[in-house]
Amino acid sequence: MSKKIGGRTLRLASPVSIIASASVVGSKEGEGPLKRCFDYISQDSYFGEGTWEKAESHMLKQCFTLCCDKAGLSPSQLDFTFSGDLLNQCVSSAFALKDSGRPHFGLYGACSTMVESLALAAMSIDGGFADKVCALTGSHFCSAERQYRFPLEYGGQRPPTSQWTVTGAGAAIVSAQGQGPYITYVTPGIIVDAGIKDANNMGSAMAPAAFETLKAHFNDTGRSLDYYDAVFTGDLGAMGHDILQKLMGDEGMDLGPRYMDCGVLIFDLNTQDVHCGGSGCGCCASVLCGHILKGMAKGTWNRVLVAATGALMSPTSCQQGGSIPGICHAVAIEREL
Amino acid sequence: MSKKIGGRTLRLASPVSIIASASVVGSKEGEGPLKRCFDYISQDSYFGEGTWEKAESHMLKQCFTLCCDKAGLSPSQLDFTFSGDLLNQCVSSAFALKDSGRPHFGLYGACSTMVESLALAAMSIDGGFADKVCALTGSHFCSAERQYRFPLEYGGQRPPTSQWTVTGAGAAIVSAQGQGPYITYVTPGIIVDAGIKDANNMGSAMAPAAFETLKAHFNDTGRSLDYYDAVFTGDLGAMGHDILQKLMGDEGMDLGPRYMDCGVLIFDLNTQDVHCGGSGCGCCASVLCGHILKGMAKGTWNRVLVAATGALMSPTSCQQGGSIPGICHAVAIEREL
Repeated sequence: MSKKIGGRTLRLASPVSIIASASVVGSKEGEGPLKRCFDYISQDSYFGEGTWEKAESHMLKQCFTLCCDKAGLSPSQLDFTFSGDLLNQCVSSAFALKDSGRPHFGLYGACSTMVESLALAAMSIDGGFADKVCALTGSHFCSAERQYRFPLEYGGQRPPTSQWTVTGAGAAIVSAQGQGPYITYVTPGIIVDAGIKDANNMGSAMAPAAFETLKAHFNDTGRSLDYYDAVFTGDLGAMGHDILQKLMGDEGMDLGPRYMDCGVLIFDLNTQDVHCGGSGCGCCASVLCGHILKGMAKGTWNRVLVAATGALMSPTSCQQGGSIPGICHAVAIEREL
Repeated sequence: MSKKIGGRTLRLASPVSIIASASVVGSKEGEGPLKRCFDYISQDSYFGEGTWEKAESHMLKQCFTLCCDKAGLSPSQLDFTFSGDLLNQCVSSAFALKDSGRPHFGLYGACSTMVESLALAAMSIDGGFADKVCALTGSHFCSAERQYRFPLEYGGQRPPTSQWTVTGAGAAIVSAQGQGPYITYVTPGIIVDAGIKDANNMGSAMAPAAFETLKAHFNDTGRSLDYYDAVFTGDLGAMGHDILQKLMGDEGMDLGPRYMDCGVLIFDLNTQDVHCGGSGCGCCASVLCGHILKGMAKGTWNRVLVAATGALMSPTSCQQGGSIPGICHAVAIEREL
């Protein structure tokens, strides 16, 4: 039986379990609606380091170590790590993992990295190359803000469509052994360019990519929306959430209340002054590795589809008038096979 | 039989062929010793675009299209693309592939990206997830120089240990069908931090990572140096080349004349004013997809080991006093199984 079904969805032939996950976030995320889900909440933005870039790397390393601890593994027992982040040249991941001693595949999937890394980790296990693999990523508000937008001291005004980069990290270890939850399907993303050029409106730029991936997933698998107890997108925010709901509705697929966006869940949009919600690699990562997987363990959901979205742009590409293409990678996670 | 042998080398269980490859370079590379190997040499640095960043993306897309043409495939027949580059947020790859319509896995492996992408492409085929996958990457001297170092107009002096970022791209399509050459082994890299902090001395920063990967490859496979007709590193340059030779010699493995570095091969170090040689994702990519694979097709070499090196740093990490960890991914390519 081919592992590729339909246009682009991959069916894992063997059970691939998520045996451990960990999440570490900053103080603002620790004051949000999901505060009880995270394993560690930092009291300040520095994580004991002297710069925000080093803080981001520290947070990611802390999350990696915690995840290994929760799995009862030393890093030396991992076959690979898959990781990437938003900092230029992905230095946050490189420095977080440089002492792990394990083979490392560096990724760049923008904010879709948590699911991209999880997908490749699961594929490397199902393909027979590995037994235990860690997928991880994170982001930091302060390092992202000054790299992508303005120095924080500038105090630039944020438009209503903007989102707030999550200070957070998530890590998950997948294994050929384990009792689930299982990664059963992977729908890798294609790049979709809707022509959006406003770097403060990422939800609109990414929603069309999420739409293409969800449509492909349901077409390829033959599953109906009802199959899933919950469908999560990574960081479309309030505006992108509504756009995706509209696009799906136009195709006759009413996502309804089962559909949630990690960027909408992680903050209180009414009181936390984050405009359209959270974004960044750490958004989907911390919500998946905190909220979603813990919810599955408690039985809140048995079958979820997690579709992480990324905006493929740089400050330079925006300054040169380039559009902001989006990408969305999805994985189905199920408690039972 | 396990696909993982020894500490970290992966043995592909099924034949994975490189069915086509293409290379596109800039004018300086087109004046170097390998000029007859490249499929296309641009006459200027702009590739018909208005900025060097767009030129880099144009070059990569041109190389991708050419590779598909040489394979007799339309992009729609590919299962995935694996690509990344040196530009911030890997926008060169994103814009080069945004119209391909195929699932895309974005990578960041610094200058090791050609082999990282080839390794993951081969693994995705051997794992049963794909039939035809394109691995590609590139770099551009002008966009890299102004992003990593100084505006070109500044005319900064380059120290003797510096290398010249190659303007070039390489693409290879691997397939479950085909008559070879075959990718037989993958030795993924670990991150090695030798404590080097000089961003103008990448060869010294990366050579220890190449050493660790070569040592692991030979230990894991039980192969002797003599098994290979040629061993190539990606872009250690003249200094890194000598360091690696010394490190290997100290372990009792004399690499000898079978060992070459793509960064040393692509330019004439005596006349082209490139100091220690070429670097950048496009260095290993264009030399592998031009020189090495064409040499294999002609029978110059039957068995080669290609070990692409990457320096994991950013201008920010260097400014903050960070060291420059290195990574090196290797693949064995053989004409016969």
